[in-house]
Amino acid sequence: MVKSEVLVLGGGPGGYLAAERAAQGGKKVTLIEKRALGGTCLNEGCIPSKALLNSAKLYEHAKDSAVFGVTAENVKIDHSKVIDRKDKVVKTLVSGVGMTMKANGVQVVMAEGVIKGKSGDGFVVEAGGEEYAGEKLIIACGSVPVVPPLPGLREGIERGYVLTNREILDKKDLPKHLVVIGGGVIGLEMASYYSMIGVPVTIIEMLDKIAGPTEKEVSAVLLKEYKKRGIDFKLSCKVTSVGEDCVNFEENGEAKSVKADAVLCSIGRRAATQGIGLENLGVYTERGAIVTDSHMLTNIPNVYAIGDANGKIMLAHTAYREAEVAVNHILGKKDIMRYSAIPSVIYTNPEVASVGETEESAKAKGMEVKTVKASMKMSGRYLAEVEKGDGFCKLVIDTKKNRLVGCHMIGSYVSEMIYGAALMIEREMPVDDIKELVFPHPTVAEVIREALFMV
Amino acid sequence: MVKSEVLVLGGGPGGYLAAERAAQGGKKVTLIEKRALGGTCLNEGCIPSKALLNSAKLYEHAKDSAVFGVTAENVKIDHSKVIDRKDKVVKTLVSGVGMTMKANGVQVVMAEGVIKGKSGDGFVVEAGGEEYAGEKLIIACGSVPVVPPLPGLREGIERGYVLTNREILDKKDLPKHLVVIGGGVIGLEMASYYSMIGVPVTIIEMLDKIAGPTEKEVSAVLLKEYKKRGIDFKLSCKVTSVGEDCVNFEENGEAKSVKADAVLCSIGRRAATQGIGLENLGVYTERGAIVTDSHMLTNIPNVYAIGDANGKIMLAHTAYREAEVAVNHILGKKDIMRYSAIPSVIYTNPEVASVGETEESAKAKGMEVKTVKASMKMSGRYLAEVEKGDGFCKLVIDTKKNRLVGCHMIGSYVSEMIYGAALMIEREMPVDDIKELVFPHPTVAEVIREALFMV
Repeated sequence: MVKSEVLVLGGGPGGYLAAERAAQGGKKVTLIEKRALGGTCLNEGCIPSKALLNSAKLYEHAKDSAVFGVTAENVKIDHSKVIDRKDKVVKTLVSGVGMTMKANGVQVVMAEGVIKGKSGDGFVVEAGGEEYAGEKLIIACGSVPVVPPLPGLREGIERGYVLTNREILDKKDLPKHLVVIGGGVIGLEMASYYSMIGVPVTIIEMLDKIAGPTEKEVSAVLLKEYKKRGIDFKLSCKVTSVGEDCVNFEENGEAKSVKADAVLCSIGRRAATQGIGLENLGVYTERGAIVTDSHMLTNIPNVYAIGDANGKIMLAHTAYREAEVAVNHILGKKDIMRYSAIPSVIYTNPEVASVGETEESAKAKGMEVKTVKASMKMSGRYLAEVEKGDGFCKLVIDTKKNRLVGCHMIGSYVSEMIYGAALMIEREMPVDDIKELVFPHPTVAEVIREALFMV
Repeated sequence: MVKSEVLVLGGGPGGYLAAERAAQGGKKVTLIEKRALGGTCLNEGCIPSKALLNSAKLYEHAKDSAVFGVTAENVKIDHSKVIDRKDKVVKTLVSGVGMTMKANGVQVVMAEGVIKGKSGDGFVVEAGGEEYAGEKLIIACGSVPVVPPLPGLREGIERGYVLTNREILDKKDLPKHLVVIGGGVIGLEMASYYSMIGVPVTIIEMLDKIAGPTEKEVSAVLLKEYKKRGIDFKLSCKVTSVGEDCVNFEENGEAKSVKADAVLCSIGRRAATQGIGLENLGVYTERGAIVTDSHMLTNIPNVYAIGDANGKIMLAHTAYREAEVAVNHILGKKDIMRYSAIPSVIYTNPEVASVGETEESAKAKGMEVKTVKASMKMSGRYLAEVEKGDGFCKLVIDTKKNRLVGCHMIGSYVSEMIYGAALMIEREMPVDDIKELVFPHPTVAEVIREALFMV
């Protein structure tokens, strides 16, 4: 039995940061990871997709900059080289996580861990034939793609015709036509990459809008932009089955089909809580996700669940913060998890970034709000750099408290701008105070200031 | 005599925003501008230079993206087209300012204004043969390039051999070799553009570092990067004269010369307070700049000076904020000008962005500080998008108050990230509070978070 003070199950963003912070707090820590440090985010999610999208953006710049005075001939993107570079980046980052664990004295066990129960030494996890005990257990088991029981879907995955986020990021040959099932963030980012490099893409989405919970006007501009770029959208359409070389779906009650030589299934993710032995401790779950309180504690004392495992907001940066909240609780530091100012980004082109309430979500909570919307054309930098852009910044203001409660943007750089808006919301700053902030000129970020002065 | 409640002299960022805000506050406003609405910033500064630098960046992307899997042949940048597009952007923005003035009922007078004195109707400015009186006077006369009395310099300007920021932004033919006198922000941005598009550039700088007051490590990395890109730096060198086809300078007491077929003189700017009639009111100046208090009031009651006119921080966004402070004082709203959190950006590649104290400036003020520095390689997005980058984020922390007082960054996107750091400093947030902020992943902005956790 290998004993630790803190035992972390899962080495993704939540798990590795929890291990790091606990070790920095003086705890003896063991981290168990079955596949690769960095989890989905580093290996088959956030990071690899950004590497691909960056290459696609450079390709577009080389191809389509005549209006800016730049021309080139015979512009090519070598998809296989893009994947190679992505692999290099991932390798660097994964090995970086490994070094961080080592530097902080975290014992890393590369094996599949299964919770066995509780002993006098704490919670017991078996991994690679060895037993590990921890006084505190942090479950950070992550998530897996949802694969619904559609005829032909599982078979399609088995024969490599249908891909999830994992396989598509390793695919070196280009499909002639890609069908994406699910117009959420993952589907849109991959559709964005493939369509930017010239692959015809069809997106089939059950809802009448794309990008899931994204603010409706933002979602509409993104849809318009991507239609213009040639992506074929089948909205309000339900996939009924996956065939040999096609995806079958229903549109207005009518059976239809679209040919494809590769299919991306990206209809959502679920907490990867099956088979990890939760039942041996009696950890309470709801629809497969572990239920946690504001300290990330489960129903079992000293057992925490962070990241996608609790299914709250399945984003790497949520997991980071949850990791810190859990470790702070273990270390006896006052801290609490808040979900009101967690930004989200879609790395499409234009980028989408949001934080806080939409008008609808605020009203549903009984808040009195008003919205203001500033066009990015008010930004000199945006005008200088973007031809015919439709970007904007929409703010949701709590009129009773005169506070910013939501910020929704589409345009350039918004991924790197949104944290500032998150700060305004998180710190509950009055609008009048924020108006006194000096934004550097000329930046696209100034559009937030422009919107603030419309309040 | 045309009477107004608020008379604004100068239609740059400070002047036009003051006019807009005063009009929105219910005042009758007249704005007098001698050249073009938007002032230096819009017409021959911030905006046009960004248009140029954007084209240069696209050109680089087209040329040098092989490592990202993107190749192109015969990549060309048409400098004259770049200038044309810049002109289009400037025209759009200038006409936008005109429309905003109109929409807010501001009377715009396009003529050179000279202050005549005070009458019963208020302060009197003569412009275009007409007299305008205002109960309040806001002086926003901007700045002009410093042209020192060096042999051959003024003659060089007259024959078009030596250019200032104004002329270089309109130059349609490419020099074979450009010499830049002065390695400050304007010099560096223009050197950046020209060297990126293939023009050999020499920068002659009196100091032993570039980028003026920029934090020293940031300045050093920028220097290294630009040396690598082929810019020839003559640091600690003093220009002695401008010849027919060369610039003469002194290096370690030795007379040297560098040939050039165009010279940019960018050694600084001074308040454009000469010839505008300040003496008719007795407005107090120091070294040519109008002295103002925290409400932007001059020594003369009801006379304000904003923007470059007061020479404090010669940046468009300083002028914006000063305009608001002045107008709030006129409107009887409580407000005060603070200079502790004004960001500054250099739009080189990599970008530089700073706000607040450096270690040196803080110590000079008697503050107890420590610094932390996080490499941008800690950001997954940075690694994915930048090959061999040296970017970093350096924070200056007041150790007594445990507060962020300075943030200095070099790398990608920092121009759009810095406002968030300005917000942290401006609102005097404790470091421990900022640590609870959730930064979206993967962004370069996360490097600020990484640095915070090093405190």
